[in-house]
Amino acid sequence: MKKRILTGDTPTGKLHLGHYVGTLENRVKLQNEYEMFILFADTHALTTLSSTPKVISEYTRQVLLDNIAVGLDPNNVTFFVESAVPEIYELAAIFSMYVSHRRALRNPTIKDEIVSKNLSDQFSLGFVNYPIYQAADILCVKGQVVPVGKDQEAHLEQTREIARELNKLTGFDIFPEPQALIGRVGKLIGTDGNPKMGKSLNNTIYLSDSKEAVEKKVMDMYTDPKRIHPTDPGTVEGNPVFIYLDTFGKEKDQAQIEEYKNKYQKGEVGDVEVKKFLARILNEFLEPIRQRREKYEQQPELLKSILENGNLRTRKEAAKTLNELKQKMGLAA
Amino acid sequence: MKKRILTGDTPTGKLHLGHYVGTLENRVKLQNEYEMFILFADTHALTTLSSTPKVISEYTRQVLLDNIAVGLDPNNVTFFVESAVPEIYELAAIFSMYVSHRRALRNPTIKDEIVSKNLSDQFSLGFVNYPIYQAADILCVKGQVVPVGKDQEAHLEQTREIARELNKLTGFDIFPEPQALIGRVGKLIGTDGNPKMGKSLNNTIYLSDSKEAVEKKVMDMYTDPKRIHPTDPGTVEGNPVFIYLDTFGKEKDQAQIEEYKNKYQKGEVGDVEVKKFLARILNEFLEPIRQRREKYEQQPELLKSILENGNLRTRKEAAKTLNELKQKMGLAA
Repeated sequence: MKKRILTGDTPTGKLHLGHYVGTLENRVKLQNEYEMFILFADTHALTTLSSTPKVISEYTRQVLLDNIAVGLDPNNVTFFVESAVPEIYELAAIFSMYVSHRRALRNPTIKDEIVSKNLSDQFSLGFVNYPIYQAADILCVKGQVVPVGKDQEAHLEQTREIARELNKLTGFDIFPEPQALIGRVGKLIGTDGNPKMGKSLNNTIYLSDSKEAVEKKVMDMYTDPKRIHPTDPGTVEGNPVFIYLDTFGKEKDQAQIEEYKNKYQKGEVGDVEVKKFLARILNEFLEPIRQRREKYEQQPELLKSILENGNLRTRKEAAKTLNELKQKMGLAA
Repeated sequence: MKKRILTGDTPTGKLHLGHYVGTLENRVKLQNEYEMFILFADTHALTTLSSTPKVISEYTRQVLLDNIAVGLDPNNVTFFVESAVPEIYELAAIFSMYVSHRRALRNPTIKDEIVSKNLSDQFSLGFVNYPIYQAADILCVKGQVVPVGKDQEAHLEQTREIARELNKLTGFDIFPEPQALIGRVGKLIGTDGNPKMGKSLNNTIYLSDSKEAVEKKVMDMYTDPKRIHPTDPGTVEGNPVFIYLDTFGKEKDQAQIEEYKNKYQKGEVGDVEVKKFLARILNEFLEPIRQRREKYEQQPELLKSILENGNLRTRKEAAKTLNELKQKMGLAA
């Protein structure tokens, strides 16, 4: 029997090349090896979108399209929306009784997001609850494997502690202790050279960007700031244009990439020529993604049913898990 | 149209005379004037019973019996169990995104319970969430009035803030801002003279205690420690026996109570005689309560259906409220 994997996105915007390198590529590779559940954490999106909640359902639709467009097979993968599986909230309410307030605040997910989202001390109680919702997201389907970045192993520890605690309390192996799958989770710098690509940084190339948008963004890309003329020797290391070429260039492009690197270092090629080459490579990469997106975008009923089926399937699993837990805790009326 | 009132109990044990004086008497008086919802917060009971969750469902049954036994009419009042209305958890999850973590910790309910339950800094995240669950308990049925003690007015402020915030966000009057009903909420000291009657203090007389148990507990009651012989002048003020006589004595008993007070102060009556009188008065008070309890205890199916009907009715209201909120926030898929 295939192991069950749980992963997902918080729908706070459309997905971009950074997401592809960071997670989507990995999902596509793993989708046949595992039974895959992909969650869209719409309630969690309120952490940053509390003043404009209306945008979340459209972002959810876009993120679903992004996932399917990169090659995740909706007949194989179960996509679901957190708020469509309310059992998650009840599970989280029970879990939260078995996690101390102090422990919750020590969670690295919390600490990381406070920094990455600039929350300082202005964060909601819901935000502090997030590690518990994460645990409920994973454990509601008894997820055994969760893909994480190599410095995120500790993020799963809270979920494992809860699983262990409730198994011990009830004397039954209700929950698995989910294992981290530390894959080649890459990072992609922004078009402006910022180490992180992010919507709010305005340095992103979206999976849904048009050919023309990609061309324009690539032309505006940051390269080597010390290089003024095409005849100046340039630096390849850390140069976003070459990083993107290395990341998205196919086998057939390798010789040309190497040639441009050599020429660039010697001052024998201009930025514009290399950028045009990168724009072409990115558009070759994005073209099949755009086509799949368009196909599904033209079938809103199909898209809707993918999510409805996924919600239904996940809800069935979650209700089973919640019932089992309540029965074994003796909570059921 | 009658206003809607929301009140309830956390099922951590059977109810006692302190609960009667503190809340139940008031509920009985208000049950016809208001449309009354009475909640049994079973998930909240995990705050103190997390290691023995199995006892909660039996406590819930006992507390329901207590409420009916004191005269609340199950045909008139809606009794429900929190965990049977899972919409409360989803509402709370949404609410928690609109309450800052700092604000939640400032809540007086939290501060009071940390002291009264001796939690020091060993409390769960679920405990910190409690004010949000309270808000969801009240607002899921759009409760307009909540009976509270006179120093508990501030406990409702969190609920009002949430109601206001979400009404403002959506531009609709979805939620009422619940008002406190500050009634004659009395307090009853323990049989040992401790200002608070509590299960863990072992100084309680339960509404379900037998005639014999009441007699024994009254005989063991604390009186005036300075009084050694029946001929010593005794103190009536602060003396639990006389406080109980004043609280539970009927009109017809007043003359006798006054006489005993006089005699006690003059050293003309023994503790035993006054205690026998108190035991009789308490048993007269408890007898009809015991009879109603027995009647319902002998009809487990009826009792079950009272809760099932209440759960169903509340769930319908809560689902309507949750849907309305999600629609107006634009969260609905």
